[in-house]
Amino acid sequence: MSRFDRAALERSLTEAPFHRWLGLRLVAADENGVEVAMPWRDEFFAQEERRYLHGGVIAALVDLTADLAIAARFGRAVPTIDLRVDYHKATAGGELRAKGTVIKLGRTISTAEATVYDLQGVLIASGRGAYLTAQK
Amino acid sequence: MSRFDRAALERSLTEAPFHRWLGLRLVAADENGVEVAMPWRDEFFAQEERRYLHGGVIAALVDLTADLAIAARFGRAVPTIDLRVDYHKATAGGELRAKGTVIKLGRTISTAEATVYDLQGVLIASGRGAYLTAQK
Amino acid sequence: MSRFDRAALERSLTEAPFHRWLGLRLVAADENGVEVAMPWRDEFFAQEERRYLHGGVIAALVDLTADLAIAARFGRAVPTIDLRVDYHKATAGGELRAKGTVIKLGRTISTAEATVYDLQGVLIASGRGAYLTAQK
Amino acid sequence: MSRFDRAALERSLTEAPFHRWLGLRLVAADENGVEVAMPWRDEFFAQEERRYLHGGVIAALVDLTADLAIAARFGRAVPTIDLRVDYHKATAGGELRAKGTVIKLGRTISTAEATVYDLQGVLIASGRGAYLTAQK
Repeated sequence: MSRFDRAALERSLTEAPFHRWLGLRLVAADENGVEVAMPWRDEFFAQEERRYLHGGVIAALVDLTADLAIAARFGRAVPTIDLRVDYHKATAGGELRAKGTVIKLGRTISTAEATVYDLQGVLIASGRGAYLTAQK
Repeated sequence: MSRFDRAALERSLTEAPFHRWLGLRLVAADENGVEVAMPWRDEFFAQEERRYLHGGVIAALVDLTADLAIAARFGRAVPTIDLRVDYHKATAGGELRAKGTVIKLGRTISTAEATVYDLQGVLIASGRGAYLTAQK
Repeated sequence: MSRFDRAALERSLTEAPFHRWLGLRLVAADENGVEVAMPWRDEFFAQEERRYLHGGVIAALVDLTADLAIAARFGRAVPTIDLRVDYHKATAGGELRAKGTVIKLGRTISTAEATVYDLQGVLIASGRGAYLTAQK
Repeated sequence: MSRFDRAALERSLTEAPFHRWLGLRLVAADENGVEVAMPWRDEFFAQEERRYLHGGVIAALVDLTADLAIAARFGRAVPTIDLRVDYHKATAGGELRAKGTVIKLGRTISTAEATVYDLQGVLIASGRGAYLTAQK
């Protein structure tokens, strides 16, 4: 894709089978960053009785949103080298929003971050990843 | 549960709706560590054409396996404070195995790690998390 | 100290023996964040022939700046639970500036981040830490 | 240097100005891992009155020990991409020992870990880093 191509970005967000299962939607995107919406699924719960969101789902959302912020600048999704996720607050349900921004776009390694909010704007989680942007 | 109770550990692994969706199975567990099997699902793919496992699924597996290693010692699953995942190799499908061990069991904070292998024994990913073991 | 007390913050930055050795100086501080200057020392080099800054010195600067951002809100320096540092660019010498901001101030765990620049404003490194803000 | 050359490894540990300041000593090294000793310096203290080791010094020790484990296999020290350090216990003084092992040696990215002990064998800290092993 060209350097910024929203339709291609949207496809890269929504065509992956795992992303389709998560139900992701591209809310906003430009070269400064991206915003992704993730609706709720009952399979996301970490516990039946204490109904809060599983940390693994949040980790996936942080990873793919940071990756998408790089894709918006770099032109394609890139492999994750490693990921850090900080869990700030348990959430009991409802759509989440994740904002992704690039920290550093490099020729070999790039770094991006994401923050996850609930619909009331409460910060649920945040994190960052290192991504491999070396050309093959 | 008591300090080590395999049936309770197995329930804590398999009763969460997200864990049921992942299809997790407890392979082995004692106070030295745990081993978890995760069968394949087509929804795990990160791309339709290049069929490899989504990093978010791996992050979930690292988190829950490290957490389970703490549960095997501490007596219950505990909230994740933060998580690091390193991706070592893309994998194209097949059951994965994750081994979890405690690095440090503390009164307030505990740390555990997990390593993820495919069925040929190839290292796919590894990582560690900090967990909140403070008693309420 | 009270909730925001610049003199106390300055002492907490400059009285530690390791901070004195690093030669740290508080450039700016309010409840929105802090800025720290670190002058150059020849002992900081990672290699004699290829004269660039050792990553361990940068890790220290990220940790202490993020911690200071919490101290500016919380009232005192707090123990680091864990730390992540991303290295974006090698630097060959000269004073560095680090900006610290709080990501989440929590009753038990808090998270803060820091970004490190050289005097030309080039991003050298960034990172984040989890800190223990539980009251004893 | 050749694939394993202890004298070269020792020089890479001890010739860096920052490493000389830290006073590092190579205790053991083979292709399975390395062990580094770091004697105490009064400049390492994080606080004058509560005399414990500064986290930045520990972060440096984790980084350089993990890097050295890669050097023992790869043939030279390599740039750190990013670093994670977990702090398990405050330490009040005395020589520390750090053991480094490779988690994954890759053509582009490698991952290694280090654990830090005091002379009584108490675990003080541990961590891991991603390192750039791409050939120029």
